[in-house]
This record gives sequence, structure tokens and C-alpha cells, in this order.
Amino acid sequence: MSSTYGQNIRMTIFGQSHSPAIGMTLEGIPAGEQIDFAALSRFLSRRAPGQNAWSTARKEADAPEFVSGLVGDSTCGTPLTALIRNTDTRSKDYFALAVTPRPGHADYTAAIKYGGHQDFAGGGHFSGRMTAPLCIAGGICLQLLEKEGIRVLSRIAAIGGIEDEGALLSSTAEKAFPTVSDARGEAMCEAIAKAKAEGDSVGGIVECAVLGLPVGLGDPMFDGMENRIAQIVFGIPAVKGLEFGAGFALAAMRGSESNDAFRIKDGKVVTDTNRCGGILGGISDGMPLTFRVAFKPTPSIGKTQQTVNLQTMEDAELNIIGRHDPCIVPRAVPVVEAAAAIAVYDALLERRKEA
Amino acid sequence: MSSTYGQNIRMTIFGQSHSPAIGMTLEGIPAGEQIDFAALSRFLSRRAPGQNAWSTARKEADAPEFVSGLVGDSTCGTPLTALIRNTDTRSKDYFALAVTPRPGHADYTAAIKYGGHQDFAGGGHFSGRMTAPLCIAGGICLQLLEKEGIRVLSRIAAIGGIEDEGALLSSTAEKAFPTVSDARGEAMCEAIAKAKAEGDSVGGIVECAVLGLPVGLGDPMFDGMENRIAQIVFGIPAVKGLEFGAGFALAAMRGSESNDAFRIKDGKVVTDTNRCGGILGGISDGMPLTFRVAFKPTPSIGKTQQTVNLQTMEDAELNIIGRHDPCIVPRAVPVVEAAAAIAVYDALLERRKEA
Amino acid sequence: MSSTYGQNIRMTIFGQSHSPAIGMTLEGIPAGEQIDFAALSRFLSRRAPGQNAWSTARKEADAPEFVSGLVGDSTCGTPLTALIRNTDTRSKDYFALAVTPRPGHADYTAAIKYGGHQDFAGGGHFSGRMTAPLCIAGGICLQLLEKEGIRVLSRIAAIGGIEDEGALLSSTAEKAFPTVSDARGEAMCEAIAKAKAEGDSVGGIVECAVLGLPVGLGDPMFDGMENRIAQIVFGIPAVKGLEFGAGFALAAMRGSESNDAFRIKDGKVVTDTNRCGGILGGISDGMPLTFRVAFKPTPSIGKTQQTVNLQTMEDAELNIIGRHDPCIVPRAVPVVEAAAAIAVYDALLERRKEA
Amino acid sequence: MSSTYGQNIRMTIFGQSHSPAIGMTLEGIPAGEQIDFAALSRFLSRRAPGQNAWSTARKEADAPEFVSGLVGDSTCGTPLTALIRNTDTRSKDYFALAVTPRPGHADYTAAIKYGGHQDFAGGGHFSGRMTAPLCIAGGICLQLLEKEGIRVLSRIAAIGGIEDEGALLSSTAEKAFPTVSDARGEAMCEAIAKAKAEGDSVGGIVECAVLGLPVGLGDPMFDGMENRIAQIVFGIPAVKGLEFGAGFALAAMRGSESNDAFRIKDGKVVTDTNRCGGILGGISDGMPLTFRVAFKPTPSIGKTQQTVNLQTMEDAELNIIGRHDPCIVPRAVPVVEAAAAIAVYDALLERRKEA
Repeated sequence: MSSTYGQNIRMTIFGQSHSPAIGMTLEGIPAGEQIDFAALSRFLSRRAPGQNAWSTARKEADAPEFVSGLVGDSTCGTPLTALIRNTDTRSKDYFALAVTPRPGHADYTAAIKYGGHQDFAGGGHFSGRMTAPLCIAGGICLQLLEKEGIRVLSRIAAIGGIEDEGALLSSTAEKAFPTVSDARGEAMCEAIAKAKAEGDSVGGIVECAVLGLPVGLGDPMFDGMENRIAQIVFGIPAVKGLEFGAGFALAAMRGSESNDAFRIKDGKVVTDTNRCGGILGGISDGMPLTFRVAFKPTPSIGKTQQTVNLQTMEDAELNIIGRHDPCIVPRAVPVVEAAAAIAVYDALLERRKEA
Repeated sequence: MSSTYGQNIRMTIFGQSHSPAIGMTLEGIPAGEQIDFAALSRFLSRRAPGQNAWSTARKEADAPEFVSGLVGDSTCGTPLTALIRNTDTRSKDYFALAVTPRPGHADYTAAIKYGGHQDFAGGGHFSGRMTAPLCIAGGICLQLLEKEGIRVLSRIAAIGGIEDEGALLSSTAEKAFPTVSDARGEAMCEAIAKAKAEGDSVGGIVECAVLGLPVGLGDPMFDGMENRIAQIVFGIPAVKGLEFGAGFALAAMRGSESNDAFRIKDGKVVTDTNRCGGILGGISDGMPLTFRVAFKPTPSIGKTQQTVNLQTMEDAELNIIGRHDPCIVPRAVPVVEAAAAIAVYDALLERRKEA
Repeated sequence: MSSTYGQNIRMTIFGQSHSPAIGMTLEGIPAGEQIDFAALSRFLSRRAPGQNAWSTARKEADAPEFVSGLVGDSTCGTPLTALIRNTDTRSKDYFALAVTPRPGHADYTAAIKYGGHQDFAGGGHFSGRMTAPLCIAGGICLQLLEKEGIRVLSRIAAIGGIEDEGALLSSTAEKAFPTVSDARGEAMCEAIAKAKAEGDSVGGIVECAVLGLPVGLGDPMFDGMENRIAQIVFGIPAVKGLEFGAGFALAAMRGSESNDAFRIKDGKVVTDTNRCGGILGGISDGMPLTFRVAFKPTPSIGKTQQTVNLQTMEDAELNIIGRHDPCIVPRAVPVVEAAAAIAVYDALLERRKEA
Repeated sequence: MSSTYGQNIRMTIFGQSHSPAIGMTLEGIPAGEQIDFAALSRFLSRRAPGQNAWSTARKEADAPEFVSGLVGDSTCGTPLTALIRNTDTRSKDYFALAVTPRPGHADYTAAIKYGGHQDFAGGGHFSGRMTAPLCIAGGICLQLLEKEGIRVLSRIAAIGGIEDEGALLSSTAEKAFPTVSDARGEAMCEAIAKAKAEGDSVGGIVECAVLGLPVGLGDPMFDGMENRIAQIVFGIPAVKGLEFGAGFALAAMRGSESNDAFRIKDGKVVTDTNRCGGILGGISDGMPLTFRVAFKPTPSIGKTQQTVNLQTMEDAELNIIGRHDPCIVPRAVPVVEAAAAIAVYDALLERRKEA
């Protein structure tokens, strides 16, 4: 099946870019958890469109309506269901794409998979817009994790080949452009603006760190922390790569370099380095859980592209009209945090059964 | 939970490195599928230990006994269960590790997670040996895929920073050292030998390609081909990174470079390039499904390492005795094929429900 | 967890009796299935309240709004989500019940389970009202089954000890009171009216038959047709018993009586009798799949009842105010059909993987 | 799929009556649980064949070999896998049944479902013998429940229409024939002996009670205690009915009779009666969880029966040779206890996540 994630909590994301609404149902949140809706709204606003030069001109309030699961502002043990109405839709922009699929998009694969019955308007269920409900569920999990002293940080690590500088030690959530180095951030913004001006787009990398994890989260072999995070992170549109700790760089190392030596510090077991990204044998080791996510450039670009006509089965040219982000990476930062929070909270509930 | 994978088939891997046996139970294989046990045995021998200079001296026949699921050599609709007896075990090598965990290993995290009740002998359930039952399930799925014209190829793409040359266009299964370029393969072997001589180890990258896939496999958002493959591949010990198609390189590209243009060729839709790795929106597009897997160096090295004593909670030094691969990448190649085959076959059964 | 059912389709029911809305998300319905919304509305009206003497005076239109999963009136492969707004709510009727739980209700068990955070208004998630979304999913599955020549019939088999007469051979859906014998139906109505007049309630039995099933649906051991139907039927509030075919009567039979002899009829294998209810080894045998469901009397009665005060932990008396059915069995008939349809359609998709 | 049960623990049963072995894999048991193998062996012996006049002459030691999941006699967090070798097999007894299916058996449905590839020897995966591994898992769960003060009692409530007398207040496990009334037990034995002498068989009812449950186990709507128990109990061969508390009798009651009044006793909430079987809204209420299971007579009888020849598609006569129980109910008693224990322990782990 498809749009459901989780074992101890279970999130199902529904809706299409241009359906009456999008939303999510989240089962398994214990009863009596008070939700800070103002904080949730601030979190959602970080990925909302129409805010700046590098995001789509589409305007959506992205204000969720909770129709189930609450008594006042606290959970009551019933599935949490929240809706976001789709208002600013322009389906006419998309009709042509059913016949001439956009390179790099799901237009073609969805057309075959669903026998032409897919909702192609706005990318349907494949739209980046589906990350809004993901952020509702993630925003709630972030609040639940904070109560247990667990924080999730992230930043833009690279865009268009320009890398951020410095280490991710504190939240970048308050920044308009979430990099550690503002200078590098400006350079990235210029790269985005340049690509946009040329009717093109750029990709990038998001780095995430989960701090304050207890030792022992994650289950071998297929429910380890890497497996759990991977299954949800690859559900974010445009993600094509994922690495934990030093990741691909480990492949070129010696064991004597890659092994993180254990030490006793303040009576606790720590490691000097963290090349394993805080995960050993799929299980959290108490150090920061770190990973990096590679996003491909937005496939919707202004430049004329080569495609095919699925009706005539001939080569064709495509000029995309419509509103698209020249770079989705800035808006993807909170989405990666949301995905991490959902995966970690699910593992945290799993851990309770072992006590 | 842990050691189970799959939705339409369901594989559970059981056993510990030094338990009476290891094995797997595989549910959901349709009845009436004839299994070529000679071919399965040849496949298993590709990852069996004790074959060459770069693998552990441990000798295991790895001959599976099927105790359930067969009538003669055909499946009968019952769960398939196969065992491999553990024979050549030397538990005494490992007792110390319960107290002084090996850097880079699950010794520490397992000790905390399981409250000291874990089976630390030979790495217990975290041993690379658990990939043998994975290869039983995968070897069966490979045979079922071949009947549908689907083939899985793989190779060593890099070891210790030395990269293979050429494209992965045909099987390397018959090679003693599975690279495309034999010259590069020799260089890699030397790097492994050098590391071994220095009591060290090296990591590497395995590349995999699935050929002959129909369009339409994989389900948005969390059961896409990337998600399905990621969940099982990160279950292979020592895997720390995964990328599809051009992967992390996409993050530095422009959309005009990364988009794979569609063309009509011989009346079929193809793409000139395959930077998306044959997956669009989580769904197979009919081009080769390609991915690369990063393995960290074997954490068990001869060199003296810094660790801690969990009883005295003081820093300690560790000298590992025992038999270990200086590089697990060569033996990991068929394991990656097995993992891919299981994920693809599971998606193939899912697809049948949509017809 | 709780409110999710199904393996190949997955239905999640959300909402509380007095939350902004109730509804369901249904994953796994193939794309391109046209839904007859008029027929769905007729089906839903069979369980809607406020229609007659024996049902609650609560008025609800029960008109679902589909916010996801459709393009026009056809499925598009995205999860189907439908909402029913709660309008006619009177929460003040229920506040007392949080302190003095109603005998036979979930008030007490929910209070303990959810630590007092449950939504007790209108019974919250335990309300019979939650069967409305179940009927949305079931009504859709009924339409999909009809396309495959599979029909679901049901009737009231007994109420308050009064049993219906005759065999269930055709639909009773058009009847105001769905019994085969109208005379027995009248007697049942009188029993309900009598109970109501006395501030009491009555239980009953619903019989269901699924016609036109192919041979081979259902999977041993724990996903047999009995298991699948049982898991969903016991999710209908007030159900306390379930039997297939001759059910409990089989326990008093000889094997020579209970075995259904096979015969060839018109070139097909049939059985003379159907004491096994069309299921052998958990698998459909091509005869009608028959089962009976026992409903306890509505626990909410007008009579003064003995209960406890959870604040003072003393015995207490309870007089229930509010609107309740003196007998929920008539309205439960379409709910049982819905449950059967969902379970059968899920098994039908499972079967496709074996082809 | 089929032979897997459980959400927080997951049991998979494998094997066929005449395959090399039968067994089970049980995931999710916390590490560090010491297992009393002598007690487990005693429990298994209660369902072992070849013990008395009313059970099959087949002799099986039913001594499980644990190949995974243990360190010494304690669990280590790895899946528990145990095997029972099949020794006393006589496959030749069964070849004919592939062509002339036994009435009341899965021979016919399995032949169609598996396209003739099923293992018909000894009933294959449909054999009552598959309850042996169920009892291994259940026997372990019974020990884990006892540590939490939870006990499971059961008895034969009826055989061949002869009902037991008295209430189920203490274990009948030590009795050769597990009824409360020995006189009634003797009468049942005579009924079995009489049926056997006439080449026939009889069915019966098993009653089960789970004592010491905390309030709050079970999850609405589809994972309530009734749903959980139903899904596993209907996996026991020959089960055709299930009722909780007063069950079907409730259908003929008034609400004023069926509601269990709450009272304070020794500072705790109890009910005077227990017509709901200790379950309200799917959630345990702290009173004994009680249910009754209806078993049909053993379908394998000595009498000549009417069947069909699936090769010639003509009517045929069947005379069954082989070894069969004239009544499986006595041996089913521990199997029902095992099923209840597995379901309850799974719900107990679920409950931990809500703390």
C-alpha cells in the first residue's frame, strides 16, 4: 500500500494537491498529551509556501482543522485527524501534463500505475504539498519528544554545490534561511536566484541531528534507527540519498579511523568521535543521531524539455507553466525534522515494551 | 520489533552467531514454485566465509535444511523455513566483549538494550552471519524474479577509496572478485591485504542494478521503491549510506541536468539518462533500478583500541582476538542482491492487487 | 493500537460521537473504480438514526464528504477519506457519566485506560455512531464486490428471544424491518416497543450470508475467513458472539451429521448441506459464507441502575438521561453487511497475489 | 498471508504434518525472561497425541528444540525459534485424499487454492498437529503472564451435547479429563467411546477464563480483547463459534438483565455479575475474561462418506483410513489456553506504550 508509516504510532497521509483537502490521521498517541497549537502553527509556517523569493507563489494558509482525537487541546486516545483545505488551486495549469509527462516527475509512472485514473492536477498525491500533513504529525511528535528531553535540529548543508560551514550545534529554526553560516546561506540564495532567473532549479542537502536520545532505541535487523528513518525520509518527494554519521565517507576509511572510541565522561559512556551517527547495530548509542538527506533539483523548470506524447507515442517538447519552487530544500528542512521526530517517537514507544 | 521484513511476503530471520542454528521463515511465496536448489547453493556460496584471503577463517558449510514449505522441490503455500546449523563456534573468544565493548560494534548498545541478557557470542544476532538466511530468502526471490524476466546485477564499486571503472552492464557473479575492471579489483585486493597486514580493515561501496522491471512497481509515499529497498538494505550490518541513481551528486546539479528526458524508442517510453535510478515518485519507470550502498570498515580490527569497562565504568584498552574479515564488502555483494530481490519481489506481489 | 482494519485495504476510523466530525480513511482501493454515490447514500440511510420508533431521536444527515481519493466519482489510487460532520450534539447530557459509569458501557474501562482523558461525550469513540464511517467503507466494498458477482445478504435472525422464520435467500434491504417473516418482524417490533415502554432494552442476532464467492479465499491459520470476519465483526459495538454455519450447534453433532458431503452438480463441486458456513480450513468452498452475530441489549436504559462513583469510590445509583435506541439490532443489520464486505474484499485482494 | 499472529509479539507457525519439522518463531519477547522448560514440557504433554482412548494412535514426543533466542534458559531478545521433528509419519495413508477430498476437511479448498501443490499428507498445514507449535508459544506466554499474576483456566464445557456442571473456578490441568464434574466427564468419555465404536466423532465446547487481568487491556475498535482473542482462536482447527461472557444468551436478554452492575468491594470497582465476560468496549474491566469456543466434530470418520473425484469430476464414495481422534476437544483445552495467553500477553505489551 502506500501512505501509512509507523508501528506504534501509525500515520496515514491523505489528499491530493487539488482535492478538497489534504490531511493526516495519526493513531497511537497516548491520551492526555496536551498540544501547543501555537507552537505547532509556528512549525508549520516554516514549510508553508508563498513566503519568499525561492518558493512557489501559491498561497496556502496551511491551518489544520482537527476533527478527531482531542478533548480541548489534549489527546483523548482516539486517532488524531487533521485537515488542511485546498483553496488556491489552478487545475487548468496541469491538464497537458497527463499527455506529456514532466521529466523527473511521477507524471509518467503514475499514469501507468493508475491506468490514467491518477489525479494529475498539481501533482496529485505526489505533490510536495503532501509534506504539510507530514509536518502536522511531525510537529506533534516534536512536542512529545521535547517533554522527554529530545530535540531535533537541522540545517541546509548544501545547495547547488555550495556547502554550509560550521557544525550543527543549535537550532536554525529562527533563521529565514536555515544555515549555520549566514555568508554561505547568502551564496546559496544567490545560486537559487540565478537558477530561477535561468528558468532552472537546484538541489541540495539537509543535515539533521537528534539530541538527547537514550541508549537502546531501534531494533535489529529491519527496524533499526537507520531503517526506520530511511523508510520515512524516502517518503519526502525529491529525496534520492541518505547517509548516517560519516556515511559514504566511511567507505574510504580504515576501521581504525571509522570506529568511534568509547570513553567514560562524567560517569557516562560517550564516544570521542561520532562517525557512526549515534547508531550501532541499528540501536541508538546516546550520542547525537545524525544523518544527511540528498534532494534532487525541483524537476519543474521553465526551460523547454524533451518528453513524449503518451497519446501519439511520439517525442514531444514540453514547456511547463505553473508555479514552482526553484529550490525546495529550504522548505524541506522542517519536513526532515518532522520525519525524524515521527520515526524517533515511534521507536521510543517500541522501547517501552522492553522495560 | 525487529527481524521481520515484507508486506506481501514476510521474512523473519532468527538465530545468533553461536546459537544451535540460524535460519529464516518466509511467508507468502505462492504455491507451485519450483526451486533450483543447486542454483540456490551456488548463490549462497558467494557469501560463505572461509574462501579467501580477505574473509574470516571461520568455516561454515552454510547448507540450508528446509523443514517447512516444500513438497519435493516445489513450494506448497506453507511458510518456508530453512535452517543452517552453527558448527564452528568458539564462544570463548567473545566473553570479554560483554565487559569491554568493541568500538563500532553493537556490543555496547545491545548490552544496554537487552539489560545484559544479549547473546554476545560471535556478535549474536548482530553478526554478519545473519546475512546467510537473508541470502536464502533472497536467492529464492532471485529465481522467482528471473521467471518474470527480472535480473539483479551488482559489483564492488569501491573499496578503501579505490573506485571500480566501467559501467555495470552484466553480472559479475562468476568473478572471484566482483568488479568490472579486474585491474581495479586487484588494486582493491591489495588495499585489503595491506589493511589486514596492519591489523586494520577497510570499507567500500556496492552498486546494484535491477533490470527488466515493469513500469509501476512501488507505492507512494512510504512504500516507494526507495523506501522498500532502504528498509531492507539498512538491515545489512555495516551499511551507513544509500543513494539511488545519481544520488548525492544530484544535490549539486541543476534541474536541467538531473531531469531524465523521455523519448520513444522502439515504440516504448525510455529515458536517455537514468539519474533518477529508474524510480520516479517512488514508482519504477522501466529503466534499470540502480542504487549504491556504503559499507563502513569492519569494526573488528587487530589494532589496540580505546574502549570502556562497563563493570568498573573506567576507560580501558581492547585487543580483539578472534576471526574477522578485513573487508566484508566482497561477501556483501550477493547480500545486497538478495536484499534487492526480496524488496522487488514484495513490490511485484503488491502490484498484482492493482490489476 | 485500535481503529484500523485490513491488510490489503486498510481502513482507519476516526472521530468521536461529539467531535467536530467522524470519518474514515480507506487505503488500497485500486484506481479507476467508479463509485455510485446515490447507492452509497441509500446504504448509509439504512443505519442512520432518527428514522423510527426503535431508534434514537438523534438526527444526523450522515452525508459523507469525500476530501481525498477521488477524481470526479472514480478512485484515483490515493487514500479515500470521507467525513461526516457531527451536528446535533448535546454534550451536557453526558458529563455525569465520567463520574458514575454506565453498567454495560465502556465508561469505566475507558476512564481507567485513558487516565480520565477520554472523550466521554456521547460515548466518544465507543459510540455506535462510529459504525457510520464503517458503513462508508463497507458500502464502497459492497459495490466493488457486486462487480465480481458477490452479494451480501443479511437479516434480523432474532430479537429478545423471538426468532425469525424461513431461510435467508434474498435481500431484506428494502424492508423497513429486515426479517424474512413479516409476522415475526412485527412480534419483534412489539418486543422492542414493550422494552422501551418499560425503560429497558433488548438484544438480538443478525444473520449474514455472502453469495457468489470463488473457492480459495482466506488464508490459514490466522487469516482464514473466520478470523478475518471475526476481527472486524467484534469491532461493532455490543457484539458478544459469532458463529459460522451451524456454529455452536455443531458442538452437539456427530461428524456424520456435521460433515457437508461433496457432490458434482452442473459440473461443479457443491455440498448438499452447508453446516461449515462455506468455510473449510479457513478457506471459502464456493458455497454461501454464512455467520450469525449476537448483540447484547443496548446498555443505556431508562431504569435506575446500580453503579459506583469513581470520585468518592462509593456505590451510587444511576439514572441515564439522553437519547438511546431500545434495540440497536435493526440498525446493526447494514453494519454487519459492511463489515463482511470489507473483510471479503480484503481477502479477495490477497487472493490476487496467489494467481 | 497466513500463519502469523500478533502485533507486539509476533508468532509465525511453520511446517506441515509430514514435513521434516513443525515449529514456530516468536518475536518480541523481552530479553532476560527465564523459561521453565520442565513446566513447558508438562504443558505440551497435555495436548500430545497417543495418550488415551479418545486420541489418535499417532505417537509424537513433541519435544521442542530451541535453535534461536536463548542464552542458557533465558531469552536474549532475538526471535525465539523452536522445532518439533516429525517422526511417525505415514504419508501413504493420504495420497487418495488429493483426488477424493474428505468432507469437512480443507482437502478440497486447499487443492483449489494452491492449484494442487498443497501438501495433503496428514492434512499438511491444516493438521491439528500445527497446534503443537501454538502451544510452545502459548506455554511461554502463560509463564510470562503468571509472573504478572495472570492465570488462564479452561475446561471442557460440553461434548456431544453433554454439558459439564459447576463453575470454572480452578485449574483442571491436572485432570486426565478436564471437566469440573467428574461424573459429567465420564459421561462425555462414554459418548466419545460410543462415537468411536460407530466409526463416528463428536464435537464440543471449551470454556476459558483469564484471571487477574488489570483494567485497561485491549484497544477499540478492531484490537479489542474480543477481536484479539477471536483472531487467534479461529486459527485453531475445527473452531466454528466463539462467545464472550453470556454470549449468544445475551441476545435474548433485557438490558436490565445483561448489564453488570458496578459495586465497590474492598475499595475496588467490581461487578456483581459478569455477563460481559470481563470486557467492556473491547477493554478488560478487571473481572475474569471468559469465553467459550465451539468445536465441530472431527471430520475424519470411519463411516463411508459421499464425496467427489476431482480428476473425473464425478461423485464418489470415501472410506478414510488413517489415525484420527474421535474427539479433539480434550486435546484442544490446552490449545485454547495457549491462544488466550498469546493474545493477552500481546495486549499487555500494547498497554505498556500507554503508560
